Amino acid sequence: MTGKHIVYHIPVCPFSQRLEILLALRGLTDAVEFHVVDITKPRDPELLAKTRGTTALPVLETSDGRVLKESLVILRYLDETLPGTPLRRSDPAEHAIESMLISVEGPFTMAGYLFVMNQDQARRDEHLNKLLALYRELDDFLGHYNPTGPFLFEDFGLAEAVFAPMFKRFWFLDYYEGFNLPEGKEYDRVRMWRDASMAHPSTAQVTEEEIVKLYYDYALGAGNGALPDGRSVSSFTFEPPWQSRPMPPREKYAVTATDKELGLVA
Amino acid sequence: MTGKHIVYHIPVCPFSQRLEILLALRGLTDAVEFHVVDITKPRDPELLAKTRGTTALPVLETSDGRVLKESLVILRYLDETLPGTPLRRSDPAEHAIESMLISVEGPFTMAGYLFVMNQDQARRDEHLNKLLALYRELDDFLGHYNPTGPFLFEDFGLAEAVFAPMFKRFWFLDYYEGFNLPEGKEYDRVRMWRDASMAHPSTAQVTEEEIVKLYYDYALGAGNGALPDGRSVSSFTFEPPWQSRPMPPREKYAVTATDKELGLVA
Repeated sequence: MTGKHIVYHIPVCPFSQRLEILLALRGLTDAVEFHVVDITKPRDPELLAKTRGTTALPVLETSDGRVLKESLVILRYLDETLPGTPLRRSDPAEHAIESMLISVEGPFTMAGYLFVMNQDQARRDEHLNKLLALYRELDDFLGHYNPTGPFLFEDFGLAEAVFAPMFKRFWFLDYYEGFNLPEGKEYDRVRMWRDASMAHPSTAQVTEEEIVKLYYDYALGAGNGALPDGRSVSSFTFEPPWQSRPMPPREKYAVTATDKELGLVA
Repeated sequence: MTGKHIVYHIPVCPFSQRLEILLALRGLTDAVEFHVVDITKPRDPELLAKTRGTTALPVLETSDGRVLKESLVILRYLDETLPGTPLRRSDPAEHAIESMLISVEGPFTMAGYLFVMNQDQARRDEHLNKLLALYRELDDFLGHYNPTGPFLFEDFGLAEAVFAPMFKRFWFLDYYEGFNLPEGKEYDRVRMWRDASMAHPSTAQVTEEEIVKLYYDYALGAGNGALPDGRSVSSFTFEPPWQSRPMPPREKYAVTATDKELGLVA
């Protein structure tokens, strides 16, 4: 018993990265122990008992033995209870404004994940347009509340901690879908926000290479550690590590790489 | 200028009823002015400018002129700022627990609305089973945190304010789908919760008759004030009032009532 909070997580998971960003911003990276869960293997029965059968991560086990689920719930709990100044805006109206922005994260995440997992090339534009509409919504929101930017308020805050991990995950769209946020006034404000959030030193936990390699199976439509047809090792496996593997093929609609081509087996 | 907050709402809207419940519980029903919006008519341009083009309700215009959207954001804002004891649990871990329960509300609402709006009788069981799975999830959650009930904690609180309006909306499932929460251990705890929440005096803003009459168009697959084929007056119209109209037919898959049969025209 360390007396510390424990977070059970997948190291590359965006929902867990939010918590790491919070800890980095508060200078409290040692306040929480991170226990790595390998989603390519059956879940440890002891952890499964703690979560009462659900497998979604991250899970927080507090130092006094409570088990909390849901990334945003855990983020707000840690923000409220850790020593130091909370990340949330102290003014209730400003907190409501950041909460409105955070309420867009669910649809935004859903749109990006459905886009990368889509296997029907004929529906590509539909996914692209849904995501672009959400970028324009974010652009309008940010332009209204803080036209000059780059953040929603003067500093990187709660909304940025929520979105930055997703912006970094969406590297998988740049790579597998050739996604580029269009030029033009409808996207300039959100581009500024995205770029400043991704460049913030508190968000350096993952790299583009890592995301592209680990999420290859998502680009083939297989999520959460599931295996694409014809493969025997998940792209999320810890062994061999992603650093030693080659970049996967970009052509998700045309090509399906083997375990061997992906460097997943010797 | 009254110096009061203004809520723009549809009187029967569940997302607005949450705010009314909060005000009732805090003894502050006069702290907010409610301005009724008729969703069967084009939106007032002045309000549309305030919401920057979006039409979702409720909208809160604060006494100092800020415009807030999203039911749960407004609920938490009012809970944090109104005089008196907040509805949220003051203990952060207990607040996280109620927030976990509240995070089920989105899928729960979606499942109930898709069920009532479904027009394909062959898919009825699919909708029913999705909703029942969510009831079992709620049952498990409540049984874990407070086995003896009836509420999540000792009193009607934030989670109950969020769910009670939805339980009352789901009267439309009882009527149009013959829905009954099954007997048995998997549903007893959530039934206790639902019944106690619906019976709480703070939730008396709507009646079953009102819900059934106003949501008839939803049962025909037409939401948000849209008109079903062959009709010229929405079931959400204020005139003639629902009290003067007959009960609509229960047989949503077989029968489509006319404006006249619904008492919507003379």
